[in-house]
Amino acid sequence: MLNRVAAVGFGSTSFSREKSQTEQKLLEATADLFNNVANLSQSDVDTVLVSSMDNTKYLSAILSESSGISPRISQSVENMCSSGTSAIISGVSYVASGLADIVLVVGADRFDSPGRVLDWDVSRGRFSHPIYWASLFASAYKRESGATDEDLAAVPAKNHRHAKDNPDAYSKSNITIQDVMDSKRLTDDIRLYDCSMPCTGAAAILLASETAAKQLTDSPVWISGIGQKNTSARFAKSGGLANMTSITDAKQAAFSMAKKTPQDVDVTELHDAFSVCEPMALEALGLASKNCGYKMSKAMFDTHDNSVNPRGGLIGAGHPLGATGIAQTIEIVSQLQGRSKKRQVQNAKTGLVHNMSAAATSSTVLVLES
Amino acid sequence: MLNRVAAVGFGSTSFSREKSQTEQKLLEATADLFNNVANLSQSDVDTVLVSSMDNTKYLSAILSESSGISPRISQSVENMCSSGTSAIISGVSYVASGLADIVLVVGADRFDSPGRVLDWDVSRGRFSHPIYWASLFASAYKRESGATDEDLAAVPAKNHRHAKDNPDAYSKSNITIQDVMDSKRLTDDIRLYDCSMPCTGAAAILLASETAAKQLTDSPVWISGIGQKNTSARFAKSGGLANMTSITDAKQAAFSMAKKTPQDVDVTELHDAFSVCEPMALEALGLASKNCGYKMSKAMFDTHDNSVNPRGGLIGAGHPLGATGIAQTIEIVSQLQGRSKKRQVQNAKTGLVHNMSAAATSSTVLVLES
Repeated sequence: MLNRVAAVGFGSTSFSREKSQTEQKLLEATADLFNNVANLSQSDVDTVLVSSMDNTKYLSAILSESSGISPRISQSVENMCSSGTSAIISGVSYVASGLADIVLVVGADRFDSPGRVLDWDVSRGRFSHPIYWASLFASAYKRESGATDEDLAAVPAKNHRHAKDNPDAYSKSNITIQDVMDSKRLTDDIRLYDCSMPCTGAAAILLASETAAKQLTDSPVWISGIGQKNTSARFAKSGGLANMTSITDAKQAAFSMAKKTPQDVDVTELHDAFSVCEPMALEALGLASKNCGYKMSKAMFDTHDNSVNPRGGLIGAGHPLGATGIAQTIEIVSQLQGRSKKRQVQNAKTGLVHNMSAAATSSTVLVLES
Repeated sequence: MLNRVAAVGFGSTSFSREKSQTEQKLLEATADLFNNVANLSQSDVDTVLVSSMDNTKYLSAILSESSGISPRISQSVENMCSSGTSAIISGVSYVASGLADIVLVVGADRFDSPGRVLDWDVSRGRFSHPIYWASLFASAYKRESGATDEDLAAVPAKNHRHAKDNPDAYSKSNITIQDVMDSKRLTDDIRLYDCSMPCTGAAAILLASETAAKQLTDSPVWISGIGQKNTSARFAKSGGLANMTSITDAKQAAFSMAKKTPQDVDVTELHDAFSVCEPMALEALGLASKNCGYKMSKAMFDTHDNSVNPRGGLIGAGHPLGATGIAQTIEIVSQLQGRSKKRQVQNAKTGLVHNMSAAATSSTVLVLES
């Protein structure tokens, strides 16, 4: 990649079950971003990218007009649950290529967004998507690793606890391991509290070239590694039930570009759409050894270590699809800027974002550095 | 822009009223592209971008799996009628930044695609969108330029005639100026044959870095100028009824990047969603002087000059929204490669693509060179 690209600021809304329009949430997060970035004026923004599973078209033009921006480049980016990070990568590419200087990336969704479930894969058997793949993953992962349901229940207990330090989080509840075990059994391997919840919310991030970044902030965060991989669209072709191979490929590319290793990572946001996703992602990202991801999640729960999913992950913070990848990235930017208040991870210098779509058939990994 | 980017090959389907699925049309155009590019294998393609107004999500992953591709970067791009050229610009950016080497960009839509009409602008008065803005443009343009309905009717007569040399075109009809004048009057200023028709079809283009391009073709076409501008989402804010200011801005950026002028252009595809759009675009692009665009269209009709909209434009070729910008670009690539058979413009070395969305609230201009 040719030119350095920085994240220089962000904005967000609360994540809730609110019934407002996607356009409204996009605008709220953008207004919050303009409030947060003191020197930014509308005319500085030359590119606007929107990510949403909403069916409304021309959302980037609508957001631009509502926000007083007349951008050159303007488009929506969609890639299921990964839409937010896909839009960020598109924005990085526009800056790195020299086609843009300052890019606003905003994602939003409603709790009832029509795109929140992928209709295309009809090979799902008796469970409705996405419960079906989470259930198959959980069954296979428990068999391979020896993890129990109670071990996996430490993931939502930990991430709901983290969410209590995130004022925007959807979860306002104390959820114990016992609460997870007692929650409604949806399949043999998934209970209600193993699931993240679709919700309404938005997140906005500002990307800039090195020169522009230094004019806008004294604490730019550099996006130094980018990895993506799309193995397939159907779960049946994604590489086995106990592996998430798209994460492995994306991780290798991202660490290689950034010249970093998993040992360098101080803070991570990863895609815990369901409890089992966190240990599987920890292993595929190289943060835990094979079949030991669940032990790492449990140990972090026991020791109150919040360096993985400090904002609460998808389970604690909620999952407004088009906003999720942007909200994950914002959390890492905030951590590396030392602005995360009660949930600040001490001395965080290098951060990792992992996002994925549709049973890990595609994954995105970003490495960020202060 | 840092790295040179070439178009190295393409594929397409016929444009028709066929009731097939968008996924099927995307796959057909992609298969045609693989047939046309002899040395290309699925594993060479590292990025897949899809443009469509279809509401189906994860289309780039679905197309990738159906085509046997496992890309790194994969996403859908949406920007109303301009979606196809927006996806191409995103692809150019990925190659120019070094994040990708070979990018497949495929657009498709159905004649009844839910996104073909923009619902958001409710200030349209008594005409349904997009007839309302075309009617207001036609009325204002006639008043300013002195053009008559009969003058403007030369545009569809010319472009339907061009379409007869394009085997994929939607139009199979001989349409005379008199036929246009006799066609059903939709508003005071728009008749049925002034309109392009939504249809079903797909188009695919392959973009590559300089090194990869030279391995895949001996006639690369370079994308040397890129301009975009988004003035607004609502027609009411787009800068007046007799001007398309987004075209002017996009044109200046594209010619400046390519170090070319309108006088260098040998062949043009421009967005003639309605008759009046062609003269207005000719003027805004600098190909005709102010208020003389209609005279240029009429003169080209009289002299059988097909250097503007040689494939038939949107009026003759049809308008499958997500495919249109890609089909326009393919036509210019084909012309610059000398592969356009009966519709070949002689000695074409420099070509221009103009695409726009929603009453010219946004425009894209590309300069291509052989």
